[in-house]
Amino acid sequence: MKLNSLHDLYVHELQDLYSAENQIIKALPKMAENATTTELRSAFEEHLHQTREHVNRLDRIFERLNESAKGDKCQGVEGIIEEGEDLMDKDATESVCDAALIGSAQKVEHYEMAGYGTVRTFAQQLGYSEDARLLQMTLQEEEQTDKKLSSIAERRVNTEATRSAR
Amino acid sequence: MKLNSLHDLYVHELQDLYSAENQIIKALPKMAENATTTELRSAFEEHLHQTREHVNRLDRIFERLNESAKGDKCQGVEGIIEEGEDLMDKDATESVCDAALIGSAQKVEHYEMAGYGTVRTFAQQLGYSEDARLLQMTLQEEEQTDKKLSSIAERRVNTEATRSAR
Repeated sequence: MKLNSLHDLYVHELQDLYSAENQIIKALPKMAENATTTELRSAFEEHLHQTREHVNRLDRIFERLNESAKGDKCQGVEGIIEEGEDLMDKDATESVCDAALIGSAQKVEHYEMAGYGTVRTFAQQLGYSEDARLLQMTLQEEEQTDKKLSSIAERRVNTEATRSAR
Repeated sequence: MKLNSLHDLYVHELQDLYSAENQIIKALPKMAENATTTELRSAFEEHLHQTREHVNRLDRIFERLNESAKGDKCQGVEGIIEEGEDLMDKDATESVCDAALIGSAQKVEHYEMAGYGTVRTFAQQLGYSEDARLLQMTLQEEEQTDKKLSSIAERRVNTEATRSAR
């Protein structure tokens, strides 16, 4: 594969995010199932709806660019999800499990924040203003999800986990 | 492995970051070598020095906790680094190569920002105030590196990459 221009790299990075989002859609239901508080479960379920919309936005961008959405599998998110699954397999108390799920989800969010920040800037540089607008919307939603997870962790989960030593 | 308390999860996440930092120490010289501008090369070299100091800080924390620094290999950063290496192997023009290196490095930075944010908050919850101080210092340095890379990308690399279509 040749990367002759910023446009080529832009498409490559969009394909990486497309793979990432689709891996996240598969992982989120298991994370929601493992969450032990209603608040955290709802946060994961809401984020699943959002993630499907993020994929729709990417589909619209690929259509406009007349490019395929299919590229290499996103190894970064694959590794982060595997780490999260390993954590879920460990024998953890309920609140420690929730703290671990949040930490893992925030790593995924941060991967996406880096990725969407990059492609949003590329779209601006390339003059693709409608793409930049859509990508900025997704970036903001990822940032909001990250903040929401921090807030759940700080308000409830960590305090309970500190008390839960068996 | 059992995760009976937030302390156990804290140690597990510190070990994950220890593995991440050591993988980054191995990856950065190749990234610096592939950078085509002096500014970007210097940024990677400076970050290598910082990363060694981050490992020293983690060593001090493990010593205080009387815990081993050795845990599972960090699969998240492993995947991100592999993606970056795949990108470096592609046939790219110089400025596109730099834009790709920056995007890849920012994914690593964001993984660390998520990880250090989590362990800093855990340390605060657990009353480990000296750990929290050290982890906050590292977190701020990762955030500064991320901003510096954005600034290099926006000022130079992307503009040149837009012009470089062969």
